[in-house]
Amino acid sequence: MRLSGKTKLMGLLGSPVSHSISPAMHNKAFEILDLDYAYLAFDIGVDDLENAVEAMKLLRVRGFNLTMPNKNLVCKYVDKLSPLSRIIGACNTVTNDDGILTGTTTDGAGYMKAAKDAGFDLTGKKMTLLGAGGAALAILAQAAFDGLSEISVFNIRDAFFEKAEKIVADLNNETKCKVNLYDLEDENVLNREITDSYILTNATSVGMAPNTDNCIIKDDSIFNSELIVSDVIYNPKETKLLKMAKNKGCRTFNGMYMLLYQGAESFKIWTGEEMPVKEIKELYFSQE
Amino acid sequence: MRLSGKTKLMGLLGSPVSHSISPAMHNKAFEILDLDYAYLAFDIGVDDLENAVEAMKLLRVRGFNLTMPNKNLVCKYVDKLSPLSRIIGACNTVTNDDGILTGTTTDGAGYMKAAKDAGFDLTGKKMTLLGAGGAALAILAQAAFDGLSEISVFNIRDAFFEKAEKIVADLNNETKCKVNLYDLEDENVLNREITDSYILTNATSVGMAPNTDNCIIKDDSIFNSELIVSDVIYNPKETKLLKMAKNKGCRTFNGMYMLLYQGAESFKIWTGEEMPVKEIKELYFSQE
Repeated sequence: MRLSGKTKLMGLLGSPVSHSISPAMHNKAFEILDLDYAYLAFDIGVDDLENAVEAMKLLRVRGFNLTMPNKNLVCKYVDKLSPLSRIIGACNTVTNDDGILTGTTTDGAGYMKAAKDAGFDLTGKKMTLLGAGGAALAILAQAAFDGLSEISVFNIRDAFFEKAEKIVADLNNETKCKVNLYDLEDENVLNREITDSYILTNATSVGMAPNTDNCIIKDDSIFNSELIVSDVIYNPKETKLLKMAKNKGCRTFNGMYMLLYQGAESFKIWTGEEMPVKEIKELYFSQE
Repeated sequence: MRLSGKTKLMGLLGSPVSHSISPAMHNKAFEILDLDYAYLAFDIGVDDLENAVEAMKLLRVRGFNLTMPNKNLVCKYVDKLSPLSRIIGACNTVTNDDGILTGTTTDGAGYMKAAKDAGFDLTGKKMTLLGAGGAALAILAQAAFDGLSEISVFNIRDAFFEKAEKIVADLNNETKCKVNLYDLEDENVLNREITDSYILTNATSVGMAPNTDNCIIKDDSIFNSELIVSDVIYNPKETKLLKMAKNKGCRTFNGMYMLLYQGAESFKIWTGEEMPVKEIKELYFSQE
């Protein structure tokens, strides 16, 4: 048994959390690299988050992750925010340096690494991005910082749309990427932007189990075989969107490795070590 | 790796704690019995104890242990105390039942089990007990409740002596055991009580490493071969007291299995299961 009196805690604060793969992933990586940490999940809702953050400090954890909606709220309780987290107002990763908490977001970096893993270099390319929720904003900001030429974001005109307007403006100011925000109901614009894009990314929950028959794209004539289509959803492994695209000859990838690589990025920040991604993939991220 | 999103935390709150054997002992027992807990040590001093107890509740730990002086202070922060903990004003074990914290003390039960393990049934017998600190009081109270006929406690006339007077009075009221408190400097009384006892127990730190030449008993003519002599100290495994007694033909046992069995008692309270003592002994409590 590797846990001793010297083992340091790490954690995940969210609700629900008991089915998260993050504890298994991080603990296996600690074991492989012989790092003296234990990563546990704690059922913490928004009402308890402030106290839970204080508890993490008191227990001298090296870091912790958060699920939504804690990703947004935790920004109020950390001492510092990374530039990306400041812009999108969210962090999935908090690092504790001797009591100073820094919030960062690795979800977008996880997506970019998943794209790279699938064989796609998005630098200088144009993306059409469906959604303006947490996952979408994390991808949007990271992609804009990572040198995509243009990103067209589509969302219905709800509260997320309004929040996204400010973020899109910030990204246009702070990066060289041209970022556009459009109403998802404007189908002509959507079709035009997809046709002009290198990659189409669904960052909404439309198509996630149990509603696997749902898909934002109704007409598959928009897919030409040059288009790459990706989905942040990993349950099912092939959403209706990806199935439709694949049938039209598009290359696709799902959200499974985004989940893996966001964890690997957090792991690197906390430990300074590369997560042994190959082993972790085989154990917890089977694409079969 | 057995840690998952469902794994519940347990802990040790003390300072220092990093060299404690408790995490290794409990985690190995969880592993052997396939119980889904992880036991970690947290460096928590008295100033942080109240917040740490709140943190344990928030993180829904099943239970936690404490080291001195947290064992005393924590009585203020729990909801309920066992009869023994109430009398001695200390608990080494806190159990969390859906947010209700109950403090108990297993140190004394650990000593009694260690005596039994060494082959000695103390029921109806007389004990001379050296010391009135935390370990001594835990043994005293448990032994009085467990049916010893008489216990003579010896301590110098310090603050511990004064605190012990009240506890001795309580035990005389609440148990059938006759409990006496004497000044350790009164050598005639000490010799008389030892001569009249079945067992002599050192529950002070006199003789502990690095001061291994120290011993409360100066003259080994007090030891007759019928006397059992025990020590709560386990470093060194044979204190000067035990060495002297053994040379005079006494049977002896040290404090190592007291440490083991206090853990086993806490384990039983938290999990409802018997700790696999044989395996744990072999791994962490070698008497060699």
